[in-house]
Amino acid sequence: MKASRMYYSQLKNYLDDLAGKKPAPGGGSAAAFSAALAVSLLSMVANFTVGKEKFKAVEAEIKKSLALSEDLRLRLLALVDEDVAGYKKVAAAYKLPKESAEDKKKRGVEIEKALKEALAAPFAVCKCCHQAIKLCPVLAEKGNVNLVSDVGVAVVLLESAFQSGLINVEINLNGIKDQGFIVEIRGALEPLQEEAQELKETVWPLVKNKMKPIA
Amino acid sequence: MKASRMYYSQLKNYLDDLAGKKPAPGGGSAAAFSAALAVSLLSMVANFTVGKEKFKAVEAEIKKSLALSEDLRLRLLALVDEDVAGYKKVAAAYKLPKESAEDKKKRGVEIEKALKEALAAPFAVCKCCHQAIKLCPVLAEKGNVNLVSDVGVAVVLLESAFQSGLINVEINLNGIKDQGFIVEIRGALEPLQEEAQELKETVWPLVKNKMKPIA
Repeated sequence: MKASRMYYSQLKNYLDDLAGKKPAPGGGSAAAFSAALAVSLLSMVANFTVGKEKFKAVEAEIKKSLALSEDLRLRLLALVDEDVAGYKKVAAAYKLPKESAEDKKKRGVEIEKALKEALAAPFAVCKCCHQAIKLCPVLAEKGNVNLVSDVGVAVVLLESAFQSGLINVEINLNGIKDQGFIVEIRGALEPLQEEAQELKETVWPLVKNKMKPIA
Repeated sequence: MKASRMYYSQLKNYLDDLAGKKPAPGGGSAAAFSAALAVSLLSMVANFTVGKEKFKAVEAEIKKSLALSEDLRLRLLALVDEDVAGYKKVAAAYKLPKESAEDKKKRGVEIEKALKEALAAPFAVCKCCHQAIKLCPVLAEKGNVNLVSDVGVAVVLLESAFQSGLINVEINLNGIKDQGFIVEIRGALEPLQEEAQELKETVWPLVKNKMKPIA
């Protein structure tokens, strides 16, 4: 049993911090990491497709997907930490003094600023998920069929990571007073969410039809 | 920037292995870890609820949730590795010689056995996700409202991890010949999936109504 615990101790510290009574990491960071898991699966599918005679005709296309999924993977991994950093600034702003009218005004300005900054990480998670979901149709159609179930897992996890990012964008927007900013952010995410949803519904039947045992 | 990279290097190795040209870890392992992220968020919500005067009336109930979410968290983390081990046995069985009729017969038996064993990990992921989703209504209703968005992220991630587990159960079932076993496994998961789905649809409006900025 022990020999098989390759990843347990590597991954436990992050989960302990996520689960514990610490203000961060929280949901935004977890969303980023869940998306990173999904994108890693896309890279895996591409890695098992390129360099094989059987897939030579699609090699250039799959290589392009791989380059993008690898970029997104490292970007999402960085967002696991960036979300924590953003959240800490918000928490610090809420702790500013609120005795005098001047204090209150300054605190309000700082909170607004910190919330806008903190929103950047989950906003980026949504954007990365959207870009990653766009890679799924080609990988489901043209990638190594033995790994098509991994495309299926990826698309399901990406859609939920998008939603999770969105929840964290909204929780920040709830504290923001700048109505123009709120409209802008929601307006930017809405079409991405729709497209992500549509792509998921396109990819899913492709995956289901192609699922067969590893051989 | 460097100081904020707390988790990057801890988590990168697993992602590298997931993304790389290695037969495992794959989708089943990623599903387990995504579920572990979600369950960690449930523990966080509980940890920020217990011990507070304001939540004294629900403390016993939340503590029970916490005990279960902590069990599930470590179980899911173990499943990240167990899925890898199960997959390796399947891959080894497929590599057995298939020259003579006797070889073929033996290989078939070993593949069937390995697939049934390998299915145990994603099956357990589904069961853990189902148990974890059952904790969400009480945490959304009675847990610290400042963390209600984390319950939202958890329920979304748990539902997708359940689906991802299911995909990996199916990919193993596709290679299994024992029809009784197939019926049994599908029959066991179907009601869990339905209940998980229903619970998600119950929890989601609760979360949405309660979402407000961190204070």
